[in-house]
Amino acid sequence: MDYYHMKPQEIRKLISEGKITGPTAGMSGGYAQANLVIIPKKYAYDFLLFTQRNPRSCPILEVGDVGDRYLKTIAPGCDIAKEIPKYRLYEHGELKGEFQDVSDLWREDLVSFLIGCSFSFEADLLEAGVPVRHIEEGCNVPMYKTNIPCAPAGVFHGNMVVSMRPIPYDLIPKAVLITGDMPKVHGAPIHIGAPEVIGITDLLHPDFGDMVTIHEGEVPVFWPCGVTPQNVIMDSKPDFCITHAPGHMLVTDVKNINLKY
Amino acid sequence: MDYYHMKPQEIRKLISEGKITGPTAGMSGGYAQANLVIIPKKYAYDFLLFTQRNPRSCPILEVGDVGDRYLKTIAPGCDIAKEIPKYRLYEHGELKGEFQDVSDLWREDLVSFLIGCSFSFEADLLEAGVPVRHIEEGCNVPMYKTNIPCAPAGVFHGNMVVSMRPIPYDLIPKAVLITGDMPKVHGAPIHIGAPEVIGITDLLHPDFGDMVTIHEGEVPVFWPCGVTPQNVIMDSKPDFCITHAPGHMLVTDVKNINLKY
Repeated sequence: MDYYHMKPQEIRKLISEGKITGPTAGMSGGYAQANLVIIPKKYAYDFLLFTQRNPRSCPILEVGDVGDRYLKTIAPGCDIAKEIPKYRLYEHGELKGEFQDVSDLWREDLVSFLIGCSFSFEADLLEAGVPVRHIEEGCNVPMYKTNIPCAPAGVFHGNMVVSMRPIPYDLIPKAVLITGDMPKVHGAPIHIGAPEVIGITDLLHPDFGDMVTIHEGEVPVFWPCGVTPQNVIMDSKPDFCITHAPGHMLVTDVKNINLKY
Repeated sequence: MDYYHMKPQEIRKLISEGKITGPTAGMSGGYAQANLVIIPKKYAYDFLLFTQRNPRSCPILEVGDVGDRYLKTIAPGCDIAKEIPKYRLYEHGELKGEFQDVSDLWREDLVSFLIGCSFSFEADLLEAGVPVRHIEEGCNVPMYKTNIPCAPAGVFHGNMVVSMRPIPYDLIPKAVLITGDMPKVHGAPIHIGAPEVIGITDLLHPDFGDMVTIHEGEVPVFWPCGVTPQNVIMDSKPDFCITHAPGHMLVTDVKNINLKY
């Protein structure tokens, strides 16, 4: 199947029918994908405020109405309980299971948060001739916990998680400008070079994802990462939380280019 | 007194001492000013969600912690109940009075929202040779209610309010690019020319502020306006709400240039 050229609605229909169950990377080229956090209303104000105070790592694309499974803006009519290929259920910060459909877990007090994902700016980097190593090597992007504190909000607090891409030194200004143009999908890097400055002591062993090759003349460049809100939520141990499984994103109807303006 | 060259902290000290009681336009040149909405916690989630869904008219610069009178980010240590020259108290949507100090009205359930203001981009327009007519004419900017619906959130709903600046037709692209670079203070215009398209039937009589001269060869250009959230809040009639009085803004410690990045 040519998932790259399918429309997002077609992809989501195949997902809801159980015909796509794997990661969504490379599906519906040109369209944005999104991270998911679903939490009960009692935590929603604190979490929304956390995202407002930490827009670099938690850029919100849409917040659902309380109890409403259907999105209105980034994927109108999408049933958020069925149209992501794999979900995770956490209770009190512990992973309780993975599901292809969470409609049986849905409750009237749940609120969905859809958060931007750096897949969107990777297409522009590649188009401009900036290498994206984890795509070249066919693995997940390396991600690290840092010592950069997020601004706390109510019960939510914790440090930023970053993704790392090795960039040839002479292409770094271009990479900064291209990604800085897309603040809704994490924007410009948060740090360039010297991993220890942000508390990364073992660059070869990322906390999440896979390590990639760093060639001679390349510098590790770090971007705020959409795993930050999940990491913070897990630390804060809400009694109930559903997220997407890593790499298994929501394919939205929003074109990447429209996240620039 | 040379208010233009004073630091924001000095301006706010004079305000808290009752030595400045008038509008803040032109004070602390180069620093951003902000609109204020203070509401009880019971409305805060709906209002924060409203601002998230309507970032063009309601760009949030800071949200205080529940019950906390002191800001942390845009004016660290600022007592939000004393450091604005004039406040308005509304109950159930009705104006109950104006105050120079609202510390006697403060309650443990109040939350402060500070919202970006287009004063910030006007300095850049002038610097680039784009006229700002209400500054030339020494009056308030003309503002209009429109037929552009805001995305509703909980109890909050209503239409966008816009500000209008007449711009010589050949400078409009420059004005779009300059203001589009500053999304945290309303960003690019929402409409150019033809007022009736957005429901403005009497351009000569603005709903708020003062009319300004439109010269031959100039086109009315409309920007999302910080009066939108106040207008929406008044329509939605919360039982208690404090705002700044129009033109009497918070002078923040944030340089305008830092609202671009």
